[in-house]
Amino acid sequence: MAMEYRRPRRDSARKMKDTQTLLTDLRQFVAERDWSQFHDPKNLAMLLASEVGELVAEYRWVAGDAADAHARAGAARERIADEIGDVGIALLLLCDRTGIDLGEAVAAKLAKNRARYPVETARGRAERPADS
Amino acid sequence: MAMEYRRPRRDSARKMKDTQTLLTDLRQFVAERDWSQFHDPKNLAMLLASEVGELVAEYRWVAGDAADAHARAGAARERIADEIGDVGIALLLLCDRTGIDLGEAVAAKLAKNRARYPVETARGRAERPADS
Amino acid sequence: MAMEYRRPRRDSARKMKDTQTLLTDLRQFVAERDWSQFHDPKNLAMLLASEVGELVAEYRWVAGDAADAHARAGAARERIADEIGDVGIALLLLCDRTGIDLGEAVAAKLAKNRARYPVETARGRAERPADS
Amino acid sequence: MAMEYRRPRRDSARKMKDTQTLLTDLRQFVAERDWSQFHDPKNLAMLLASEVGELVAEYRWVAGDAADAHARAGAARERIADEIGDVGIALLLLCDRTGIDLGEAVAAKLAKNRARYPVETARGRAERPADS
Repeated sequence: MAMEYRRPRRDSARKMKDTQTLLTDLRQFVAERDWSQFHDPKNLAMLLASEVGELVAEYRWVAGDAADAHARAGAARERIADEIGDVGIALLLLCDRTGIDLGEAVAAKLAKNRARYPVETARGRAERPADS
Repeated sequence: MAMEYRRPRRDSARKMKDTQTLLTDLRQFVAERDWSQFHDPKNLAMLLASEVGELVAEYRWVAGDAADAHARAGAARERIADEIGDVGIALLLLCDRTGIDLGEAVAAKLAKNRARYPVETARGRAERPADS
Repeated sequence: MAMEYRRPRRDSARKMKDTQTLLTDLRQFVAERDWSQFHDPKNLAMLLASEVGELVAEYRWVAGDAADAHARAGAARERIADEIGDVGIALLLLCDRTGIDLGEAVAAKLAKNRARYPVETARGRAERPADS
Repeated sequence: MAMEYRRPRRDSARKMKDTQTLLTDLRQFVAERDWSQFHDPKNLAMLLASEVGELVAEYRWVAGDAADAHARAGAARERIADEIGDVGIALLLLCDRTGIDLGEAVAAKLAKNRARYPVETARGRAERPADS
């Protein structure tokens, strides 16, 4: 399905804006609009779900073996980057509100997954739905 | 609803693991298990949707005005951090596969949102569903 | 939170269109457009997820204790009915494609839930996330 | 992708339990457990999103051209029917709470879709994401 896959080059050589700077920008954006009153974690989880729904919509009619190419084409790529931006914003807002560090949460979960899916048994086998 | 809200202190003073390091770790995790064959962007969008579903499940019976407190309690906090870790992993895998830089996508979308929701008209008003 | 809740009167006294008639109409709609080629169960699950995302968007900024009233107001009610229609269409298409009878699936799951959540222990307690 | 697709025979020749009977059963199930206090439309939209997330999980690693067969196999079929049951329950609870008739909402949206996607222009073309 993905034999031909090669990791695409970065869109840009610019160094990624670090997460702390993004959080500072997001906080300012929210504060200027007085939106923190709407941003309890329950509502932000819903925001995240609705944004992910839009990202899923982008791929729903794309065949699996065309999915890599789809994200490289002009208009589709821009829409996908837009949706990923929305999902990232929602996720960072939720992390900021709950005081959960995204990088730490990812690293901690990755460590759990290493233990849960040992290389010798997991190799080449998709995780079973019941496992997650 | 969130009058009493105060940003919680970070779980840890440790510096966040930077995104590049996380990506390197994730790539190794996937490569060791030969899972890249399953990770086309369509499948990863579905992974993201299912992980977000689990995060939403955590809040579905929690009242809005109890949602901030919910994420501070012991077992619930751990589950929420776990689900955020899963969502973050899915999102980073999707970014890596499509070559879309998460930080850039967030920054670009935030810039668009600044234009779309001017402070003077958006202040104190939740975005309307039709707008997003 | 919902003390004041009273079941609203039906929008209409018309008898609900029965599911078999709806399925016949949906099949014709799809056949006329030659869309069955896109409607494998994986794609339909994604359609369902994206439509549910739009429904969730409708409620994300609505406070829990205003959620009942929200669905009764003019424009919001129409949008919600629209989104419910979309979700219903996606779900029926998936059922039709997989040959799973929606009514039977609901009845069977309800029977399981009766056993899983005995009245004496479940009464007045929201299901715990870990249980579902 | 779905050339070989043939509509599967119904699991059962039993007549589908009609929606009104299911609603009566669901209301009794909820009333016995005093759960109506948790079932405002916002929470039910979240329930729906989390159940759909579990259904999506079932298909995330299944290739598109294997998706029809996946729903016919023993254990997978049972899990999928289970998840469809959960989604149906959440959707019916939401319809009942808001007083929106599922059958009417589906029929009304189908009528809108007929106008939105005329046969002559839509034939054989997947809906574009931006359109939905």
